Amino acid sequence: MSTLRFSKLIDGLPASVPFVGPEHLERQLDIVFQARIGANENVFGPSDSVLREIDRAKEFCWQYGDPELLELRSELSKFLEVGIDEIVVGEGIDALLGYICRLFVDPGDTVVTSDGAYPTLNFHAIGHGARIQSIPYKNNRADLEFLAESAGAVDAKLIYLANPDNPMGTSWASKDINQFVSSISARSVILLDEAYGEFAGDDVLPVIDTSLTNLIRFRTFSKAYGLAGLRVGYAIGHRDLIRQFEKIRNHFGVGKLSQVAAVAALKDQRHINNVLDLVAKSKERIYRIAVDNGLAFIQSETNFVSIDCGHGGDYARRVLESLIRMGVFVRMSAVAPLDRCIRVTCGTDSDLDLLAQSLPTALDEARRNA
Amino acid sequence: MSTLRFSKLIDGLPASVPFVGPEHLERQLDIVFQARIGANENVFGPSDSVLREIDRAKEFCWQYGDPELLELRSELSKFLEVGIDEIVVGEGIDALLGYICRLFVDPGDTVVTSDGAYPTLNFHAIGHGARIQSIPYKNNRADLEFLAESAGAVDAKLIYLANPDNPMGTSWASKDINQFVSSISARSVILLDEAYGEFAGDDVLPVIDTSLTNLIRFRTFSKAYGLAGLRVGYAIGHRDLIRQFEKIRNHFGVGKLSQVAAVAALKDQRHINNVLDLVAKSKERIYRIAVDNGLAFIQSETNFVSIDCGHGGDYARRVLESLIRMGVFVRMSAVAPLDRCIRVTCGTDSDLDLLAQSLPTALDEARRNA
Repeated sequence: MSTLRFSKLIDGLPASVPFVGPEHLERQLDIVFQARIGANENVFGPSDSVLREIDRAKEFCWQYGDPELLELRSELSKFLEVGIDEIVVGEGIDALLGYICRLFVDPGDTVVTSDGAYPTLNFHAIGHGARIQSIPYKNNRADLEFLAESAGAVDAKLIYLANPDNPMGTSWASKDINQFVSSISARSVILLDEAYGEFAGDDVLPVIDTSLTNLIRFRTFSKAYGLAGLRVGYAIGHRDLIRQFEKIRNHFGVGKLSQVAAVAALKDQRHINNVLDLVAKSKERIYRIAVDNGLAFIQSETNFVSIDCGHGGDYARRVLESLIRMGVFVRMSAVAPLDRCIRVTCGTDSDLDLLAQSLPTALDEARRNA
Repeated sequence: MSTLRFSKLIDGLPASVPFVGPEHLERQLDIVFQARIGANENVFGPSDSVLREIDRAKEFCWQYGDPELLELRSELSKFLEVGIDEIVVGEGIDALLGYICRLFVDPGDTVVTSDGAYPTLNFHAIGHGARIQSIPYKNNRADLEFLAESAGAVDAKLIYLANPDNPMGTSWASKDINQFVSSISARSVILLDEAYGEFAGDDVLPVIDTSLTNLIRFRTFSKAYGLAGLRVGYAIGHRDLIRQFEKIRNHFGVGKLSQVAAVAALKDQRHINNVLDLVAKSKERIYRIAVDNGLAFIQSETNFVSIDCGHGGDYARRVLESLIRMGVFVRMSAVAPLDRCIRVTCGTDSDLDLLAQSLPTALDEARRNA
């Protein structure tokens, strides 16, 4: 391929996949996961009304989706009480993070994030030539003060923050986020990832203020709404920023079926409340399973729980690998000190039965191989 | 927004949408299209087996799709008799064209295409800073000789060619394509868009040869397979080129439902044969409608027909606008001399009844306003 002339950036990029899919592990280990509680999907699924809507709309899946996504953006606009021109919809938050990196990053620009935060952000930022400045967590949370300080020091183009946090499940109160946002120079754009926002307590998500020119907030139908397999995320921000996505986004990227399903999902808030109840109960049970096994857990504002296995990354990895061999798909961070934890997504009763049954064995195996 | 520091390219880009959706026209004109025969969708839809598969899989739409798309790529690999590592799947050909531009285009590089060819290619190429070198059609086809000559003269990074052609519906024989490919320097990558390949005659698609390092071919489930609303396209090429997509693609961009539907669609070739019959009959009827109205048509190797309205772009636009007001969604090229034609997608009997009924009025109106 020596004759091919890739763009300047491409040769230097690794062929890295931000996440290995559970399907890959199943193929590699020749197993079928009995509990799929590793990707923070919503095992409780979408509502019956969404399934009925897919049923109705499947006859029309030969049609491209509306490239303006007007119905979905209208519904979001009403629901969020923001202007329709303050919302952009994309093929999941992943795609939107890719777009925002492309909008801002020139090679050599700095993007500030936290050690062990969402790797797909790094994938896209590096993919556009960014230098990553990564800040350690403090007490299992993004270190807002240090993030802000670093952003100023390196004149960051972008600053990434997830609230609630992934992979730790922790959160900052809205007033802390507001203070953080106001401490950042208008020269730097803050990417506030609220993928898990629906699961958080009342005081976590700041009131939406689209007058801020350098804040963009990302949300998704993949988590609470249970539609990860249909790829719909959105971002909320100042209309002058949101408009820029038109220059680069894949206008037909969100298909017909995804659009109608998302509209139906948004309209069924009773189902979301039901999901929140189920998630809360599931979290309590995961906490108990941790405690029953002598492990600490981190109180979570999301649909997953980080369980501290107590002995650093190698040990946690052995626990995780053991669970995986027993048919329980869970994940963990690759970055210390977050990698002392395994991350367990809220599951059904039978998912958690299997976890409860498998974890003691996994811990035994990890200890024996220590 | 003056404080925001967009990347060097972004400020210079127009906020252009490659295509206006029919939904936009419906909203603007307060109509509902009775015949949606403008976007080259497959009105005959996917097979019953695909609909059954969506029905079965919708319960799992809370799951992300396999980021490696292994099952779909395996099936494609068997079907096309190429290696699984010679196929990349993306969110429609549109997304893949975006990726290939990103892989190759540095600002100032030249991309060669034809005047009036697929505008989304230009959107992505310009979006990555390319200079577009655009070659006029000759006898309603891409001018292969002139394309090759220009690509050499400007040392093109990428050369785009659709075969069969969109928007004219014409084609080159496989031997001509092969000769064209062999005439291009190995320094330039040829993007061969075969979105309409399934509709073409036997001698249009060259035998696949993945030993060629600078040829990549694009195909889709949006046309013959009737799944435009699920966003699945793929590209076939040399494994060393295909591998590069891993560095930048949206790994989770093709959702669960889209993947299973595409697998089911591929397995039901009887349905595709049925679609081809229906499309052939529909084309014959569109030809007749053209002739009945005293208009010339261009023989088509696709699922649409370009009808030459005979009096240049302004006239054709009036015909088109009139049809649209009567509830018939059709499209036309914005570029002369292609804009003398309206482009009509193969439709159901009732779609074409409405076309047959509306076209004389539309022509009358166009003449009266001449």
